Amino acid sequence: METPLAYNILDANDKIAADLRADFAARGLLVFNLISSPGAGKTALLERTLADLKKEFAMAVIEGDLQTDNDARRIAATGAKVVQINTGGGCHLDAALVRTALEELPLDGLDILFIENVGNLVCPVEFDCGEDGKIALLSVTEGDDKPEKYPLLFHLARVMLLNKIDLLPHVDFSLERAERFARLLNAGLRVLPVSCRSGEGLEAWYDYLREARRVKLTQS
Amino acid sequence: METPLAYNILDANDKIAADLRADFAARGLLVFNLISSPGAGKTALLERTLADLKKEFAMAVIEGDLQTDNDARRIAATGAKVVQINTGGGCHLDAALVRTALEELPLDGLDILFIENVGNLVCPVEFDCGEDGKIALLSVTEGDDKPEKYPLLFHLARVMLLNKIDLLPHVDFSLERAERFARLLNAGLRVLPVSCRSGEGLEAWYDYLREARRVKLTQS
Repeated sequence: METPLAYNILDANDKIAADLRADFAARGLLVFNLISSPGAGKTALLERTLADLKKEFAMAVIEGDLQTDNDARRIAATGAKVVQINTGGGCHLDAALVRTALEELPLDGLDILFIENVGNLVCPVEFDCGEDGKIALLSVTEGDDKPEKYPLLFHLARVMLLNKIDLLPHVDFSLERAERFARLLNAGLRVLPVSCRSGEGLEAWYDYLREARRVKLTQS
Repeated sequence: METPLAYNILDANDKIAADLRADFAARGLLVFNLISSPGAGKTALLERTLADLKKEFAMAVIEGDLQTDNDARRIAATGAKVVQINTGGGCHLDAALVRTALEELPLDGLDILFIENVGNLVCPVEFDCGEDGKIALLSVTEGDDKPEKYPLLFHLARVMLLNKIDLLPHVDFSLERAERFARLLNAGLRVLPVSCRSGEGLEAWYDYLREARRVKLTQS
């Protein structure tokens, strides 16, 4: 009896996500859903991105956490608008939670909205939040076998950011192996090695955002 | 309508877990449930532990993964008995899955059983598998804020292993801060800094296992 219920929950979620996606499209608003393990660097990536591109784009963040508003305070310190969702222990964001957060986040004039999901490589992947694409972050400290072991995220993501490459000399991680596993799941995946600490590779990520924003505007 | 169902699922799980716990107790079998983010080092910890203590204890592993049997093959290479559970995308193990795995794992003569859960700091924590205790692994590359941000695991765990301390010179991680947050949630928590790569700190973990096994035998 569990399967039909699960389908109903996902079906209801997809309906709300479709409404959100239509609203985002009408505004030409680019929306990305950031998904990773705990501590892979989602907040650090946003801190850098919001600071470095603040003159190019109007950006905002929906911040998902089990509890605490630590990450939201880090984001707010960049000057970007941020809305916190505390899931109260829940393991993922969904479209209804994003819709609720948007009641506190005026979208007029925004260019890019980032949804920082709960740190979890499994559950968030199943719930469409109306985004243009999912961005997978994988820290090189987690091991190059993760695309093979947690395949759905890497199958669905538009981009795989391989973060913390400043630590590559100190860990056993093959960029080539991680990329090969991920491309078996997703031939069109963009793979971008970065270090949010040193800044290495971030310019390629920013170029990706610029290009995605340009494409989005031609579609709306 | 979701809350009653969730309670029913957890209630059913707890009944099976209680049966498992009674069986384990009758055998004097010590059982630990290992929980961490993806890539924090659960399999590496088991590889070291199984190899280093093989002359002291008869040990076995139940290996939980979304898919692949990579970790089970790593465990089998140590000579320990291992049973793989593939959850087919499911985000956690539960007592029923463990019970099914035990059909392929004779417990006679075993001293310690390790359950390596799916890599996920959230969902596995909610499902009792009949273990004596949960062991939380936190890699220092994940950040010292994780006990505060993912509190339930650290509240319930008997031990927090802080792994990858060989990387401390290269990351921003305060052992003191991680320990302080965790102890606010769990005053009796044992905190053990280790490196499964260099072996540093593992002897304290082994001493913990020896002591836990001794206590278990006096209880059964």
